[in-house]
Amino acid sequence: MLYIGITMGCPVGIGPEIILKYFSKERKNPDFAPVVLGDPNVLERCRRELGIGLPLLIWQPGEPIPVDKIPVIAISTLKTDTLLWGNPNRITGKAMADYIISAVGLIHDGLLDGMATCPISKKALREADFPFPGHTEMLAHLTASDNPVMMMAGSKLRVTLVTIHCPLASVPDMINRRSVRRLIQITHEALVNDFNISAPQIAVAGLNPHGGEQGLFGKEEHLSILPAIKEARGQGIDVSGPFPPDTVFFKAASGDYDAVVCMYHDQGLIPFKLLHFDNGVNVTLGLPIVRTSVDHGTAYDIAGKGEATSTSLAAAVELAAAIAGNRRRHGQQTPAGNSTDGNNYEKT
Amino acid sequence: MLYIGITMGCPVGIGPEIILKYFSKERKNPDFAPVVLGDPNVLERCRRELGIGLPLLIWQPGEPIPVDKIPVIAISTLKTDTLLWGNPNRITGKAMADYIISAVGLIHDGLLDGMATCPISKKALREADFPFPGHTEMLAHLTASDNPVMMMAGSKLRVTLVTIHCPLASVPDMINRRSVRRLIQITHEALVNDFNISAPQIAVAGLNPHGGEQGLFGKEEHLSILPAIKEARGQGIDVSGPFPPDTVFFKAASGDYDAVVCMYHDQGLIPFKLLHFDNGVNVTLGLPIVRTSVDHGTAYDIAGKGEATSTSLAAAVELAAAIAGNRRRHGQQTPAGNSTDGNNYEKT
Repeated sequence: MLYIGITMGCPVGIGPEIILKYFSKERKNPDFAPVVLGDPNVLERCRRELGIGLPLLIWQPGEPIPVDKIPVIAISTLKTDTLLWGNPNRITGKAMADYIISAVGLIHDGLLDGMATCPISKKALREADFPFPGHTEMLAHLTASDNPVMMMAGSKLRVTLVTIHCPLASVPDMINRRSVRRLIQITHEALVNDFNISAPQIAVAGLNPHGGEQGLFGKEEHLSILPAIKEARGQGIDVSGPFPPDTVFFKAASGDYDAVVCMYHDQGLIPFKLLHFDNGVNVTLGLPIVRTSVDHGTAYDIAGKGEATSTSLAAAVELAAAIAGNRRRHGQQTPAGNSTDGNNYEKT
Repeated sequence: MLYIGITMGCPVGIGPEIILKYFSKERKNPDFAPVVLGDPNVLERCRRELGIGLPLLIWQPGEPIPVDKIPVIAISTLKTDTLLWGNPNRITGKAMADYIISAVGLIHDGLLDGMATCPISKKALREADFPFPGHTEMLAHLTASDNPVMMMAGSKLRVTLVTIHCPLASVPDMINRRSVRRLIQITHEALVNDFNISAPQIAVAGLNPHGGEQGLFGKEEHLSILPAIKEARGQGIDVSGPFPPDTVFFKAASGDYDAVVCMYHDQGLIPFKLLHFDNGVNVTLGLPIVRTSVDHGTAYDIAGKGEATSTSLAAAVELAAAIAGNRRRHGQQTPAGNSTDGNNYEKT
């Protein structure tokens, strides 16, 4: 059995709601057990407000998984009468961070096999004195990892990003042979180990229109991207490109490639969200632990209203379990976390 | 009746083939008549090679449209025994340019109502001493127009581009209040006059990830894009944004917006080609004449092999006719070309 921890994310966002909906709607999968790391008070209030029948059960690793109850590891016990949907504060920020820290700790101890995260408030994280720009950077710190990589994965398309959260004007300077080469390598390893594709085919998108049109519209393809591709090919990776960005995603989604290595955030996210608006999963590569995430935010505008859908969370949990299973088969992590070196989870 | 001229494009590309397939496959539309501007020798050779039954008829404006024949205005008469599929030269370049010049001239004289263009070779164009980077720039010169704008139009999505064929690194410097404001205006006018949408709703994409995330990932949204949107709104245009680029196209394709104003080539072309790989149309806005184009290139790798499809050409011809009809209704062009000032078609 694989245990996947679902961190509740911001207590006043849509995290609690999508968790309750996920457990109410999803059929049981005999291969893995999802468990919640969060706040039973918040979940219970949300459960009553939304009229969800399935009850909570306070649960600890090692205990049997309950039938027809939601297993919750109680990390915080907030006073719900002071909480307002959509209004995070220092206290909710601290609780939210603790769910993540606890999940990493339990994975490290081999008590969970991976985690799927609900969205957090970056602002509340900072207010609670966790000085990370986001979830991924916090997880990198907690697991002592350098430069984690974002992959967006869906049934039709997988993309990885050489650059992520930076101004578009900074992107060209960050594209170099090394950064592209590294991403090809990480993408290849993830496809083999995490997605169980024995001989993956990877496409690399160019940076410029038409892939630079022989240098007419930019030289990064010639100077950085092509050399990185050649180097990776020389080391046995089936990778090709750089392709004109405006056609490579159609080809990948048609089945020609297992993943597209993208140069910047929107190059990958625009086609990905067009194909996987509701069911995309954000996978963090380059961590020693399995971590997936929903691909939406806290959605404060609809928090507590019963309008959120659990589709992306369901996909994130399923994928975390699949990756954990594949890594186990490939001897990457047995049990999850034991191969983690230099774990920082208690240092923050 | 509306007459739409189809320019044959590069004589050794897929232009002749898709023209023949278009006339063979498309049902007659009683509202408009497509006519070819090209080379009867090339078309006849292609017709025999592909075994297409429908014969050619050398045609002149003013003559009746033939039933079950392809009307061809003979602009060139190349010696086909010296031509090789996929190998353009100075002579094919000159012929290709003449089809375009003739079409503009006939539109100017009111003998055609619009043109749909097959792909050209930029290299052959230069070799034939037409020093234009591409089709659109040549048409701008021929019609004495400044800064034409590219719109890609399909049944699900329409996008217009503030910047087009330039390195990605040059894009941020080209985004300013004026360039964005101008594009909103041109997009609005095209939706009203060309697409007959009385109260169009326009979305504007941001430049940076998440639309800049309150300045964290770039300031162009705040400094240039938002002021342009406010100015346009103040003048009665229903335009909103800047939106995060990775979600705005899904919303537009779902029917929330009639067009998305995009900051750079791949921002618009990636989602457009994902939704309209085979049936997208390139419309040139900001010209006094109606001009659409297929959204693919000369495809020299498959020229003469019978593998090309006429789907995009069919869409381009249909749309040129629809735009010509709408402009006529809106009093923009009656008949086509008579409102053209400063026409340059005989100067090149």
